[in-house]
Amino acid sequence: MAFVFSSAFRKQGLFVPFLNAVRGMSSSGGPTPPFTTLSVSRPVDAVTHVEICRPEKRNAMNKAFWLEMVDCFSQIAEDSDCRVVVFSGAGKLFTSGIDLMGMASDILQPDGDDTARISWNVRRTIAKYQETFSVIEKCPKPVIVAVHGACIGGGVDLITACDIRMCTQDAWFQVKEVDIGLAADVGTLQRLPRVIGSRSLVNELAFTARKMYADEAKSCGLVSRVFPDKEAMMAGALEMAGEIASKSPVAVQGTKVNLIYSRDHSVADALDYMSTWNMSMLQTQDLMKSAQAAMEKKSLKEIIFSKL
Amino acid sequence: MAFVFSSAFRKQGLFVPFLNAVRGMSSSGGPTPPFTTLSVSRPVDAVTHVEICRPEKRNAMNKAFWLEMVDCFSQIAEDSDCRVVVFSGAGKLFTSGIDLMGMASDILQPDGDDTARISWNVRRTIAKYQETFSVIEKCPKPVIVAVHGACIGGGVDLITACDIRMCTQDAWFQVKEVDIGLAADVGTLQRLPRVIGSRSLVNELAFTARKMYADEAKSCGLVSRVFPDKEAMMAGALEMAGEIASKSPVAVQGTKVNLIYSRDHSVADALDYMSTWNMSMLQTQDLMKSAQAAMEKKSLKEIIFSKL
Amino acid sequence: MAFVFSSAFRKQGLFVPFLNAVRGMSSSGGPTPPFTTLSVSRPVDAVTHVEICRPEKRNAMNKAFWLEMVDCFSQIAEDSDCRVVVFSGAGKLFTSGIDLMGMASDILQPDGDDTARISWNVRRTIAKYQETFSVIEKCPKPVIVAVHGACIGGGVDLITACDIRMCTQDAWFQVKEVDIGLAADVGTLQRLPRVIGSRSLVNELAFTARKMYADEAKSCGLVSRVFPDKEAMMAGALEMAGEIASKSPVAVQGTKVNLIYSRDHSVADALDYMSTWNMSMLQTQDLMKSAQAAMEKKSLKEIIFSKL
Amino acid sequence: MAFVFSSAFRKQGLFVPFLNAVRGMSSSGGPTPPFTTLSVSRPVDAVTHVEICRPEKRNAMNKAFWLEMVDCFSQIAEDSDCRVVVFSGAGKLFTSGIDLMGMASDILQPDGDDTARISWNVRRTIAKYQETFSVIEKCPKPVIVAVHGACIGGGVDLITACDIRMCTQDAWFQVKEVDIGLAADVGTLQRLPRVIGSRSLVNELAFTARKMYADEAKSCGLVSRVFPDKEAMMAGALEMAGEIASKSPVAVQGTKVNLIYSRDHSVADALDYMSTWNMSMLQTQDLMKSAQAAMEKKSLKEIIFSKL
Amino acid sequence: MAFVFSSAFRKQGLFVPFLNAVRGMSSSGGPTPPFTTLSVSRPVDAVTHVEICRPEKRNAMNKAFWLEMVDCFSQIAEDSDCRVVVFSGAGKLFTSGIDLMGMASDILQPDGDDTARISWNVRRTIAKYQETFSVIEKCPKPVIVAVHGACIGGGVDLITACDIRMCTQDAWFQVKEVDIGLAADVGTLQRLPRVIGSRSLVNELAFTARKMYADEAKSCGLVSRVFPDKEAMMAGALEMAGEIASKSPVAVQGTKVNLIYSRDHSVADALDYMSTWNMSMLQTQDLMKSAQAAMEKKSLKEIIFSKL
Amino acid sequence: MAFVFSSAFRKQGLFVPFLNAVRGMSSSGGPTPPFTTLSVSRPVDAVTHVEICRPEKRNAMNKAFWLEMVDCFSQIAEDSDCRVVVFSGAGKLFTSGIDLMGMASDILQPDGDDTARISWNVRRTIAKYQETFSVIEKCPKPVIVAVHGACIGGGVDLITACDIRMCTQDAWFQVKEVDIGLAADVGTLQRLPRVIGSRSLVNELAFTARKMYADEAKSCGLVSRVFPDKEAMMAGALEMAGEIASKSPVAVQGTKVNLIYSRDHSVADALDYMSTWNMSMLQTQDLMKSAQAAMEKKSLKEIIFSKL
Repeated sequence: MAFVFSSAFRKQGLFVPFLNAVRGMSSSGGPTPPFTTLSVSRPVDAVTHVEICRPEKRNAMNKAFWLEMVDCFSQIAEDSDCRVVVFSGAGKLFTSGIDLMGMASDILQPDGDDTARISWNVRRTIAKYQETFSVIEKCPKPVIVAVHGACIGGGVDLITACDIRMCTQDAWFQVKEVDIGLAADVGTLQRLPRVIGSRSLVNELAFTARKMYADEAKSCGLVSRVFPDKEAMMAGALEMAGEIASKSPVAVQGTKVNLIYSRDHSVADALDYMSTWNMSMLQTQDLMKSAQAAMEKKSLKEIIFSKL
Repeated sequence: MAFVFSSAFRKQGLFVPFLNAVRGMSSSGGPTPPFTTLSVSRPVDAVTHVEICRPEKRNAMNKAFWLEMVDCFSQIAEDSDCRVVVFSGAGKLFTSGIDLMGMASDILQPDGDDTARISWNVRRTIAKYQETFSVIEKCPKPVIVAVHGACIGGGVDLITACDIRMCTQDAWFQVKEVDIGLAADVGTLQRLPRVIGSRSLVNELAFTARKMYADEAKSCGLVSRVFPDKEAMMAGALEMAGEIASKSPVAVQGTKVNLIYSRDHSVADALDYMSTWNMSMLQTQDLMKSAQAAMEKKSLKEIIFSKL
Repeated sequence: MAFVFSSAFRKQGLFVPFLNAVRGMSSSGGPTPPFTTLSVSRPVDAVTHVEICRPEKRNAMNKAFWLEMVDCFSQIAEDSDCRVVVFSGAGKLFTSGIDLMGMASDILQPDGDDTARISWNVRRTIAKYQETFSVIEKCPKPVIVAVHGACIGGGVDLITACDIRMCTQDAWFQVKEVDIGLAADVGTLQRLPRVIGSRSLVNELAFTARKMYADEAKSCGLVSRVFPDKEAMMAGALEMAGEIASKSPVAVQGTKVNLIYSRDHSVADALDYMSTWNMSMLQTQDLMKSAQAAMEKKSLKEIIFSKL
Repeated sequence: MAFVFSSAFRKQGLFVPFLNAVRGMSSSGGPTPPFTTLSVSRPVDAVTHVEICRPEKRNAMNKAFWLEMVDCFSQIAEDSDCRVVVFSGAGKLFTSGIDLMGMASDILQPDGDDTARISWNVRRTIAKYQETFSVIEKCPKPVIVAVHGACIGGGVDLITACDIRMCTQDAWFQVKEVDIGLAADVGTLQRLPRVIGSRSLVNELAFTARKMYADEAKSCGLVSRVFPDKEAMMAGALEMAGEIASKSPVAVQGTKVNLIYSRDHSVADALDYMSTWNMSMLQTQDLMKSAQAAMEKKSLKEIIFSKL
Repeated sequence: MAFVFSSAFRKQGLFVPFLNAVRGMSSSGGPTPPFTTLSVSRPVDAVTHVEICRPEKRNAMNKAFWLEMVDCFSQIAEDSDCRVVVFSGAGKLFTSGIDLMGMASDILQPDGDDTARISWNVRRTIAKYQETFSVIEKCPKPVIVAVHGACIGGGVDLITACDIRMCTQDAWFQVKEVDIGLAADVGTLQRLPRVIGSRSLVNELAFTARKMYADEAKSCGLVSRVFPDKEAMMAGALEMAGEIASKSPVAVQGTKVNLIYSRDHSVADALDYMSTWNMSMLQTQDLMKSAQAAMEKKSLKEIIFSKL
Repeated sequence: MAFVFSSAFRKQGLFVPFLNAVRGMSSSGGPTPPFTTLSVSRPVDAVTHVEICRPEKRNAMNKAFWLEMVDCFSQIAEDSDCRVVVFSGAGKLFTSGIDLMGMASDILQPDGDDTARISWNVRRTIAKYQETFSVIEKCPKPVIVAVHGACIGGGVDLITACDIRMCTQDAWFQVKEVDIGLAADVGTLQRLPRVIGSRSLVNELAFTARKMYADEAKSCGLVSRVFPDKEAMMAGALEMAGEIASKSPVAVQGTKVNLIYSRDHSVADALDYMSTWNMSMLQTQDLMKSAQAAMEKKSLKEIIFSKL
C-alpha cells in the first residue's frame, strides 16, 4: 500500500508524522499526532482517510476538534498525493455532536463588558465553528462520509458539508439543536434543505429533533447508499474512493468546484463560470489520456495522471 | 385545556372574541367572529389551530378569506402565547381553491381606463393575494398543515407556504390553474419546486393539472406523513405541534427564520446571517434550561420557557 | 393527422421542407432536410416531435447537431402552431453523447497563438455548446423528453434542460465526463442538482460516472414516469403532450417562463415577477373560455384558443 | 389653487380633514389632524406636499412620526389624485433627527426576559422604523425632498429614501449616529453609498459624523439643486413637481418602479423586468396623447391623462 | 490610413463591401452597404469607426437600425483585426432617438388577438430592442462614443451601454421617454444610475425629461471628456482609440469582460471570476512582450501582439 | 504619545517587537521586524499606523509584502487596542506597484505539468494576492489611506480596498496593468467602479493606463481630501483617525461591517442584516455614555469606552 508524504506538507516545513497512520485504517486505535481528535491515514493510494477519534467520549466535538478540522482539511487541500477523502468515526458511533461540557465556556459564558461586546465575541466564535465544516467544501477533493450508529447535532452539520453520504443499517440522524435551546448555527439549516428533496421533512427534523433512521435517510436522499454494517460500509467507501481516485484529478476536482459554485448561483451564472473554468482546464493531457483509455477499453486505473 | 388571550392582542386594544374557539377544535362547527372564513382555537397550550371554515362552499377562497388570512397570521405572529400553528380545513375536504364566482369582479372585470391602468390594478390585486400566503412564512412560528380530501389550485399555493405538510390517505392535490386559463400566480410556481425534489414532477403537475394522490405526495416529499383518516391526522398534527411547542421558542422560531432565509440566499450569506442572528440569541436562559433538562433526562414539557 | 406549416417560418422566408416529417413519426427513418441530425414532425395537432436522428452513430452529437438544435428550437419558439414539444432519439438508444471523433478538432486541437488565445477560443466554443441546450429552456413551450436505452454524457446535459423526463424500463443514464478527463461543461453540473432531490446521489453520479437505471431514476425523481418499452413511452409522451396542448397557451407558456424564472431567483423576486407577468396575461379570453368549459364540464379539447 | 380630496381616502372611510392644508403651504403653522407630526396639503394640482411639522421640537422624529409616515405614504400611494410628492420641514430647519428623549424607552429600555428576548424585540422595533422610510420608495410617485437648515441623523436616512434632493444654501447634513454610540440602522448605510458617487466621502461622513454643507452636497451629488433660501427652494420644488405631474402617470410611476428595481438587480435582470413591465404599460392612451402633443408642439400641461 | 478586411468576416462567407468606408471617416457621406443606417470604416489600424448615418432624419433610430446594430457589433466581436470601436453620429447631431413615425406599427399597433397576446408580442419587441444595445456590452472590445449636438431618448440608452463617453461643448442629453408617455425601456433606467454618481440627478433627468448640457454631463461624470467641437472630438476619440489599440488585446478585452461582470456581481464573486479568468489569460506572450517594452522604455505601438 | 502592546498579540504568544515603531512615525526609517516590508507603529492612542516601507525599491510589492499584509491586518483585526488604521508609504512615493522582478517566478514561470495544472496553480496565486487586500475590508476597523507621489498598479488595488482615501497635491494614480499585458486582477476592476461615480472615467483609466492627478482624483471622488504636502496629509490623517478613535468602537466598527455588507447586497437584504446586527449592538453602554456626553456637551474624547 503506497504512502508518500505530500510535498506540499514538506515545503511548508510542517512536521506531520503520520507514521501510525501508515499502517492503515484498521490498526489506528486512537488519535494521531499532531492531531488529538483526528486520525489521518492513507489506506489506499491517493485516498486519505480521516477519522474522528475520541471513541471514549462518543466522538464529541471538543475545542481541539474544531481547530484541527481546519488544519487537517487545509493540508489535504494542498496535498497533491490525495485525490479523495473518506471521513468516518472511530468506535461505536459516528458522533454525539458538540461536547457541551468541554465547550461550556465558549458558548455559555462568553466574554465581554456589555451585551454588544459579548455578542461580538459570540459571533466570532460561531463564524470560526462554521469554518470548521466549510473547509470541507473549500477542499476541492471529493469527501465521502461514512456514518454508523448515531450522528447527532454537530454531526449533521458536518455530513451535510460532505459530498457523498453513506451509512450503515443501524445509523440514525438527529438535528438535535432545538432540544438544547438554540437554532443550529454551523451549517445544518443552510445545507440540509439543499441536500434532500423534501422541505417538509427538513422542517420536521429541525423543529422536532426526532431521530431519522437509515431507511428514511436513504429514501429521502440524505444518504445514497446503506450498508449492513460498518465493515461493509468502510469497504464500500474505500472502493468508491479508489474508483474516483483513478480518474483525472483535473476532471474530478473541477467537477467539485463547479458543483458547489452552481449551488449558490443562477444557472446562467454557473454556466458562464463553467466555461471560464474549462477554457484552461480542457487544455490537459488527461483528456487525451482518458480518451485513449476509453478507446482502448483500458481501465483508468492503468493510467497515470500527473499530480494536481 | 388551557387558553389564555394573547397579551399582544389586548395591548393593541383589539377586540378579538375567540369565545367559540375556546371550546376547542371538535366543537367549532363554523366560522368564528370576527373572521367569517376562518375558525381559530387553542386546542392545546401554546398551539393555535386555524381552520378554513366554509364547508358548505367546499372551503373555497373568497374575498374575505384573502383578507382575513393576513389579519389572522399577523395576530398570531404577535401572540406570545402561541408557539405553533396547525392549519386544516373544515368539512369534507381541505379546499377547492379560489372561489371564482365570488371573485369574478376582481379577476375577470378589473378596473381601469386603458390596458395599462387595468394592468396596474390587476398587479396590485395579485400582490395582495400573494401576501395572503406570504404572511404564513413571515410568521416566525412553525405552521403544520393537515390536508384531507381535495387540495386544489389556491390550496396548493397555501400549503407550499406552510412549514410541515401531512395528509390523509384519501387526500389529493391538484395544481389546477392552467385548466382555467392562467399561470398560477400566488405562490405555487415559486415554492413547489423548492418543496419537492423532482423537477420533472413539478413541471408535470403544473402543465397537466393532473391529480396527485397521497402515496405519490409522500414519496415525492410534498408531505412528510400520511394518516389513515382525518381524525388520526389531526391527533398526529396536534401531537407534533405539542412536541414543538414544548421546546425553547427562541430556538424554534430562530430555526424557522433562518430556514426561510437560507432558502433564498447562498450558503455563505446564510451562514453569515445565522452567526449574526445567534450572537444575541445564544444569550438566552433557554440554553441553560434546556441543557439542564437534557442532563437530568427531564422532558422539555416540564420546563417553563419565558414567552417570546 | 393535422399538420400546418408555421406562419412564422414562412414569414422569415426560410425554406423548411419538413415533407418527410409530415408522414409522421413512425415512418421517419432518417434525418430530415434541412437538418441532418434532427428529424422534425407534427404527429399530433400543436405538438412538435423532434428526434435526434443519427442511429448508425448511436445518435452521437456531432458539430451539425450543436448548431441545428439552436436553429430548431428557435424556430419552434416562434412557431405559433406548436404548443408542446416531444424530444426523443431514433434507433436503439437515446444518445451516446458527444461525438468525440467528429469534434476532436474543436476540443482537442483548439486554435490560438498562445495559451491565452487558445483559452479565449475554447471558452467561446463551450459557450456555444451550452447555448445548444439553453435554447430548450428559452423556448416557452414545454419540452417532454422520452429516453430509451442509453443516455450518456451530453445526453444528460440535454435532458436536464427539458421540462418533463420519462424513460423506458431499459433506460440508463451516465454522467460520463470525468471518465474522459473533463468536468461536464454544458449543463449537467448546473442543472442536475436542481432536477433531483438527493445531492449525495448527484455527486456520486458525477464523480464516479456510474450508470443509473430506470428504477433509481424514477425513485430519485430524475424521471417522473417509466414505461415498459419505447412504443408505450412514445404513446404516453404524445398523450401527455396532447393533453397539455389542449390547454390555454397563455397559461401553459406563462407557467414555463415563471417556473424557470423562479428557479434562479428568490421567492420574493419570483413572486414580484409573477405579478408583473400576470397583470397583462390575465387579460386573456382564454380565462373566460376555460372557466366556461369548466362550468359546462366540457373537455378543453373542445375549446379553440387563439394562437400565441 | 386646486384641491381635491383623493377618492381613495374617502373610499377607505378615513376622515382626513386637510382643511388647514388647503390654504397652502406658507400658512400651515402646525401639525394637521389626524396627523400630529405631519402637515399634508395640495399646493398644486396633483402635487401633495408633506411637511414634518414639530418646529418647536426642531422637527425631531418622535414615536408618532414613525407611525404616521407609514400611514401618510400608504395613503399617498393609493391616492390617484396625487402624482408627485414634495417633502420638507416646517420652521427653522429640516429635522434634528430622532427624538432621543421621546423614544428612550424603545431604544434604551427595551422589553424582554433575557438578552435573546430583548434582542428579538429590538429587531422588530428597528424593522418597523426602517419601514417608515422604505414606504417612500414603495410609493410609486416621485418624492422630491427640500432641505433647509439642518438635516441630522434620521434626517439623512429619510432623504436618501427620496427620489430627488434639493437644498438651500444654508443647509447642512450630518450622519450623526456614531456620535450617540450606534451604527445608523434605518437606511443611511444602505442607501447613501448608492446615492452619491464617492465612497471615500460616504465613509468619512459615516465614521466622523462631520457636517457637510450645501456646496459639497451639490458637488458630490447628494443634492441636484441648491437654492439661495427656503422660499426660492419651495418655489423650485413645486415648479419641478408641477412639471412632473403634467406628464403621463403611467410613464412617470413606471419609471420610478423600474429605477428602484434596477438598483437592486443586475442589468440583465432589470432589463427583463422592464420588458415584462412595459408589455402592458405601453398599451396606454397616454402614449398616443403624448406623441400627439409632441407633434403638435403642445405643452403636456394641456393634456388630460386618466388617473392611475 | 491602413484598412484590412477582417478575416472573420471573410471566413463566414459574408459579403461585406465596406468600400466607401475605406476612404475614411470624413468622406463617408451616407450609409454604407449592406447597412442602410450605419457607416463602418477603419480610420486607424485596429480601430473600427461606426457611424449612425441617417443625417437627413436626424439619425433617428428606425427599424433597420435596431437590426443592423446587432449584426454590426456581432461582426465586430468576431473581427480579430478590430481592437477598439469609436461610435459617433453623422451630420448635425448625434441622434434624435427613436423614429416614432417609422416604428409606429411595432409600438402603437402591436399584433395579437387579446391583451395577453398583444402583451406577449410587445415584450418580444422590447427584448429585441434591448438586445440592440446589449450587444455593445457583449462585444469585448472597448467602445468609445463621441456625442455632438443632441442625444435624445434612445440615444441615451445607447451611450450608457458604451464604455467611454465624450462630447462636444455644444452637446446636450435628454432622457425623453416620459414626454412621450412611456418609461424608458431599452436600457437608460438600468444603466444610467450605474454610469453617473448622483442618483438625485438621474431621477431628475428621468422624471423631468430636461436637457443636460456638456458641462453638467462632465461634472456629473456622464462623459469623461469635453471637446470644443466635433472635429477636435473625433481626433481625440481616435487618438484614445489608437492608444488603447496599441496595448495587448488579451489585457484590454479581459479588462472589459471583467469590468462588466463586476458591475452585476458582488465584489467576492467578481474577484473569484477574475482569478478564474486570469488563470489562463496570464499565460500569454503579451505579458512578456509588454514587460520587456516597459523595461526597454519602448512604446507599445512598436510591439506586435498576436490577434485575438 | 501613548503606546500599549495589544493584549491580543500577546495572548497569541507572538513575539512582536515593535520597538522602533514606539518612537513614532517620523523616526521609523525602515522596515520593522518581524515584518520586512511593513512598519507598524502607534502614533496616537488607539490608532495603528501601517507604512509600506521599502523606500529604496519605490515601495514595490514583493513576495514578502503580499504575505505580511495578511498577517498584519489579521493581527490588527484582533487587537482591541486599535480602533483605526492609517496606511501610508515611506519615502518619496506611495508605491510603484507590484515588484515584477521579485515576483517573476510566480507570475511568469508558474509551475505545472500541463496548461490545466499551470492554470490551477496560477489561480491559487491570484486568489492569495487578492486576499492581501481583502483583509483590509475584513478588518472591522476603518482604514484611512494617505497617498503621496505615485500610486501605481497594485497600489490602486490596495487603496480601493481602504475606507477613506486622501492624497497630497503632487499625488498621481495609474491603473497600470494593461500596459504590462494583463487585466488587473487583485481588486481594481472590482472595487474602483464602486468607489468613484463616473463609469466612463473608470473605463478610461483602466483601458488607457493614463495618470490621474490629485485634482481629478478629488473631483471624481476617488479621494475625499487633498493636502498640500505629505506632512500636512499625515497630520490630517492622524487627526481624522484620532477623531474616529474617540467614538464608540461598537458604533464605528458596526458601521464599517454594514457599509461593506450593503455594497454587495440589495437594500432590502442590507436593511434586514442591519436590524439583525443592531438587535444586540444597541444593547451597549456606549449608547448611554455617548448620549450623556451629547447632553452634557462633552467631547467624546473625555469618555472611556470599553474595548472591543
